[in-house]
Order: sequence, then structure tokens, then C-alpha cells
Amino acid sequence: MGNISRRQFNRRLSQGIAGSALFSSVPLACAMAGTKSREESLGIALVGLGSYSTYQLAPALQDTKFCHLAGIVTGTKAKERIWAERYGIPAGNIYNYQNFDTIADNDDIDVVYVVLPNSMHAEFSIRAAQAGKHVICEKPMAVTVAECDAIIEACRKAGVKLGIGYRLHSEPYTQEVKRFVREKTFGKTAYVNAEAAYRSAGNPDQWRLNKALSGGGALMNMGVYSIQSTIYATGENPVKVTAQEFSTRPDYFKDTDETVTAQFQFPGGATGTVFTSHNANANSLYASCTGGWFSLKPANNYGPLAGESSNGPIQFKHESQQKLQMDDFASHILYGSVNRAPGEMGKRDMIIIEAIYRSISEGNRSVPLELGNMGLV
Amino acid sequence: MGNISRRQFNRRLSQGIAGSALFSSVPLACAMAGTKSREESLGIALVGLGSYSTYQLAPALQDTKFCHLAGIVTGTKAKERIWAERYGIPAGNIYNYQNFDTIADNDDIDVVYVVLPNSMHAEFSIRAAQAGKHVICEKPMAVTVAECDAIIEACRKAGVKLGIGYRLHSEPYTQEVKRFVREKTFGKTAYVNAEAAYRSAGNPDQWRLNKALSGGGALMNMGVYSIQSTIYATGENPVKVTAQEFSTRPDYFKDTDETVTAQFQFPGGATGTVFTSHNANANSLYASCTGGWFSLKPANNYGPLAGESSNGPIQFKHESQQKLQMDDFASHILYGSVNRAPGEMGKRDMIIIEAIYRSISEGNRSVPLELGNMGLV
Repeated sequence: MGNISRRQFNRRLSQGIAGSALFSSVPLACAMAGTKSREESLGIALVGLGSYSTYQLAPALQDTKFCHLAGIVTGTKAKERIWAERYGIPAGNIYNYQNFDTIADNDDIDVVYVVLPNSMHAEFSIRAAQAGKHVICEKPMAVTVAECDAIIEACRKAGVKLGIGYRLHSEPYTQEVKRFVREKTFGKTAYVNAEAAYRSAGNPDQWRLNKALSGGGALMNMGVYSIQSTIYATGENPVKVTAQEFSTRPDYFKDTDETVTAQFQFPGGATGTVFTSHNANANSLYASCTGGWFSLKPANNYGPLAGESSNGPIQFKHESQQKLQMDDFASHILYGSVNRAPGEMGKRDMIIIEAIYRSISEGNRSVPLELGNMGLV
Repeated sequence: MGNISRRQFNRRLSQGIAGSALFSSVPLACAMAGTKSREESLGIALVGLGSYSTYQLAPALQDTKFCHLAGIVTGTKAKERIWAERYGIPAGNIYNYQNFDTIADNDDIDVVYVVLPNSMHAEFSIRAAQAGKHVICEKPMAVTVAECDAIIEACRKAGVKLGIGYRLHSEPYTQEVKRFVREKTFGKTAYVNAEAAYRSAGNPDQWRLNKALSGGGALMNMGVYSIQSTIYATGENPVKVTAQEFSTRPDYFKDTDETVTAQFQFPGGATGTVFTSHNANANSLYASCTGGWFSLKPANNYGPLAGESSNGPIQFKHESQQKLQMDDFASHILYGSVNRAPGEMGKRDMIIIEAIYRSISEGNRSVPLELGNMGLV
């Protein structure tokens, strides 16, 4: 990196200063080749060591090229030693929720990944930004649109990058669907159905079933996937939504929505239908276009995904989606590649979620949406 | 048939007089064996010689065991000779819409199959019943619930059998789904999604696009299939429905609904979602149950259908659905086997259709349904 430190380099790049000048003499392929050295790999701190961090993110970060697991932030003392031993994390890179802000002084940490319950996303994303760290915020971005705005503003003010944990935008099946739509491989989408649901029957005290922590049930958790599916299968944001809620196990789903269905109108004429539930299993995307069709099934789990179109099977080698996602975000920071899931995408989805809840609370009526191109990548 | 004529026998059976007495001495297997003789095969007259009669029903009637094509009723003079020659139909068995009622005097005709545009179903089903003929009425049964009542009453009064042209109830994939539900193979259904749609781009003057003839668009035509799917995938009638209409090609769909989505609540807790359209292609049934899942895709075309479940592939030999359907109805008349698609089923679906249109016209609000077990077979 010559006479500027990696950290200064990243800062400059992220502020758009260094990029073009540097790369005019250093070919990208060279800059990116043979990575894994600390110099070209960003340090990630995971905030919240629940099952997603434990079983998906941390293992994936062992295989990433442009970033690595450098630190942890946890409220559970017992997890500190386990993680430190398993991943060789030095004591200085271990934080709790009280001393978290001192992470600002830690040069090992470039990116903070917020993997906490939804209601804590805004607070920790903002504190991370204020500590000068780039932010990945798990989906859903927050529990209100106002919180999304606050996160975006905090990141803007701090000059740090912000990404939402929409891993699917980094994996090839979803990218293929987006390519179909962009290149009109099958013409214009006329109908898209997207399902994202699983049957929950475990611990009734889990945070996902607690509205104060989750902000909502199936819709906040799985619904986001099906909303996203309809958007990338049309390439547009919806202009109108109607929605319904169904409840059959109120003893278990005391506090959060069990099943939600929603119907979207897209400006190009497509109809989108969404099913999400914590009381059934469904995981698919189907689109009928003017000149053919495509489908993914499963469409939104951790993979391997599978797909088919009127042109034949869709097949890609399976890789960890989380690995791809984090390398994409690190590459965005390091090399200015596209931010596949920017904050505006998370905010847009929260606007849609709020409209769905509004339709439900107002007798299933149609709610208009004015999103323009917000969050379309 | 001994000392009563076949015709008298049928009449008595249909009135429930002869059945048990006769069959106590004549095993069903014997009575049904080696058919095709006129004595044991009912004569069918097709009313309306459009493409469904031409390409599906008439060919199927060449392969049926318990019935055969005996007559035609057409308003198009030119078709008389073509059909008479192709199928060897005697001049005395050819009717037009004016002289149709004289079919009462024709002993060759036992069953009248009404294959006319929807708005004519009631008139010709009632005239057929009044002529003393058993009636198969194509789906949708009519264009209003009141018309369905009139058909049912006319058949009751005349002592003739009434079946609706729901061919799928006679084919093995649908029967397998009904068996899954009846036997709780996968437990209780929690979610069912049913799609029935095709993209219409042909003659804009076709009767299906003319509300005076069709009574409605996609919902009346294809929607009936998806409504039916949700019902046999749950084994219940819905208790509540919300619905939405989408229109993107108003120049083509001047008069009838282009796309309709609906959401059902079932008394056992299942959520049902329905998509039907004349502007997209979709043909599937997916059900998530407490202990597994099943799906058909395609689910409702003329076949071959295909299916899968959490237990593996669903596979049956393909046969003409129309052949199976008509033999089932003939067997119902001749031998008292179950009527797989009675008039009450058609009426129930029309009640649901009217509720869907009502939800749409009243701001997508929830409309209650009080169907009990109506039409469940």
C-alpha cells in the first residue's frame, strides 16, 4: 500500500478520493490477487453471537477473500472465551454492549456487522457509524422507517459505507433472475409469486416472537425475502399494496403476526403476490413473463438453491451466500465495486412493510406506494 | 336388463328405487363388465360445438365405456354435416337451439352436456332437465347463484341427475390430493396456493371476453380451478375471503376481469391464496401441511399432470380426463356410484365467486362465507 496505511487508504477510497488516481497505475486484478494478507483484508466485528453469527457468518468469514473475522461484540460473557479460542480473537477485539463505543480506537476492526434482534439494529448501526466503522446491518434493517432514516444519516455523516444483510443479492441464482429481468430474457414480467415461510414450533420465548425485540413476526422476518423477490423479479418497486393477516395459533403467536399475504401492483403492469408465515413451509419464486417464465425453488434459504426457466434448468455451483455477501461488501469498500444492498434498499422494504401493516389494520384496503427507484440495484 | 327397458331402469335408478334391490343379485363387476353395447352405454348429446366439444369431449366420447356420443345441438348449420359424418350421428339426433326441446322424445339421448357460453348454461340445463334428460353443465355452473339454484331445482323436479364439468375430480392426481387430505397423509393443511392462469392474446371478440356471455373474465373461467384446488387441498370450504383485481391491458380486456387474486381463511386454520389471470401463465397447486407437503404442477390443464410430495414423486398413467369424467357420471346414473361433481359443488363455487367480486367492489374488504359442507365430495 506504499506510503499510506491500509486504514487511510480505505477511508480515502470510501470517501471517493483515492480510487481513480490509484487504480490508474495499479490494475484491479493485481490489487485483488493473492489476498488473505491483513493488508488487503478488512476486519469484521460481529455484534450479537446468536445462531446466525455462530452457524453462518463466522464459518463463512473463514473463507472470505477481502475480509475476515477480527472481533466480536456480545452481551454473554460465556461466549467470549469460546469464540476467542475457536477463532483466535485477541482479548482486545472482544467487546460488550457497554464498552462497544471504544471500538472506535481499534484499527483491527473496519466493519461492524449488526446481527442483533431487529429492535437493536438502529442503535448499534448508529453507534458503529459514530465509531467510524463501516456497517452491515442484518435484515430487516430496523423496525420503523424512521429508524432506517437515522441509520442512513448516521452513516452519511460519518462517511462510512452501509450495507444490509441481503445475502441473496450476492449469490448467482438471484443474480441470474435479476439478469433475466434486466435483459428481458423472457420479456416483461406479468406475474410473480413469492413465498417465504417456515413453521415455527420451538421456544415460545425466542426474540422473533416478541414484538418489542422483533418489531413484528413472519412479515419482518421472512416476508422481507418475498417482498424482495417480487421486486427483483420485476425490476421495479410496487406502486400499490393490499394485505391480509391470518392467525390460527394465537397461543403460540401471542405477540407477532403468524401469516401475512400481500398483493402488489407494479408500474409495468405486473401483479405480485406474497405469502409469508411462521406457520407453514414455503420457499419459492415464480414469474410468468410475456415470453416465458422462470422460477427458483428453494429461492431464499441458505442453499443450495435450485432454479428452472422456460429455457431449461438454472444451475450454479453452491457457495456460502454469506461468504459471497461479505466479500462483495468488502470489495465495495476496498475497490469501489457496487454496493449490492445499500441502506436505501433496506429503508424501501421497511416502507413496504409499514404499508402492509397499514393495509391490514385498515380493513385490507389498497395502500399506495411512492418509491420511485429507491433501493433498486 | 330383463323385463324393464334400459331407459326405465335408468330412470328408476336415478330416483333411487331400483338400485339396492337389483344389485343384491347382480354384482357390480358383472353389471359393468364388457360394456360398449348400447344397452349399458348412455347416449350423450353435446350442446354447443365450440373448441372444447370439438377437441376434447367428442374425441373422449369415442373411448368411454358407459356412454357415447349420440347427438349434437348446434346453432351453426355448417357444423351439422361435419359432425354427422365424423361421428356417424343420425339426422334424427341433430338439434338446433330452437327445436332443442323436442329432444324429450328421443330415446337415444340420456344425457345432455351443456358446453355453451356461461350465460347460456342455466337456460339449456333447465330445458334439458325439463326434457327429462340427465344434465352435465360445464363450469362455471352459471353466472349467478340464483341461476345455480334454478338449475338444481329443475333437475330435482324432473328427477334427473346433475353433474358439473369438473373433470379433475375424476382424474388420479386430484384424487390423490383428496386422499392425502382425507387420510391426513401429511397432517393438517396449513397453507395452500393455487394458480390457474393463461395469457390470452387471441381474438378480442371471443365470448370469454364478453361479459354478457361469460358473466366475468379470468375468475369465471380459470379462477374456478384455483378455488377448487384450495378446497380439495384442505378438505374444507372457506369461511372468509378477501380479493383484489388487477388490470393492465384494458384495451384488450374491455369488459371482463384480467387478473384476480384472492385469499381464503379455512375453518381448520389453513390460509389459501389464489391467483387467476388471462394475462399470465400459471398452473399449480402447493400445500404445506403440519407433517409435509404436496404439489401438482401442472395442476389443472388437460394433462398429463405432474406431482410431487414430501414422500416423493406422484405419478399416474395419463388418460383423457374428459373420458374419465363422463364415465364417472354415466356410472353414477347407471350404477349409483358417487356423483363426483354435483350441482351443489357448482353452486358453492358460484357463491365464492360472487363473494370475491363483492370484496373487490367493496375496497378489498373481508367477506364472510357460510357454506358449511356444501358441495364437499
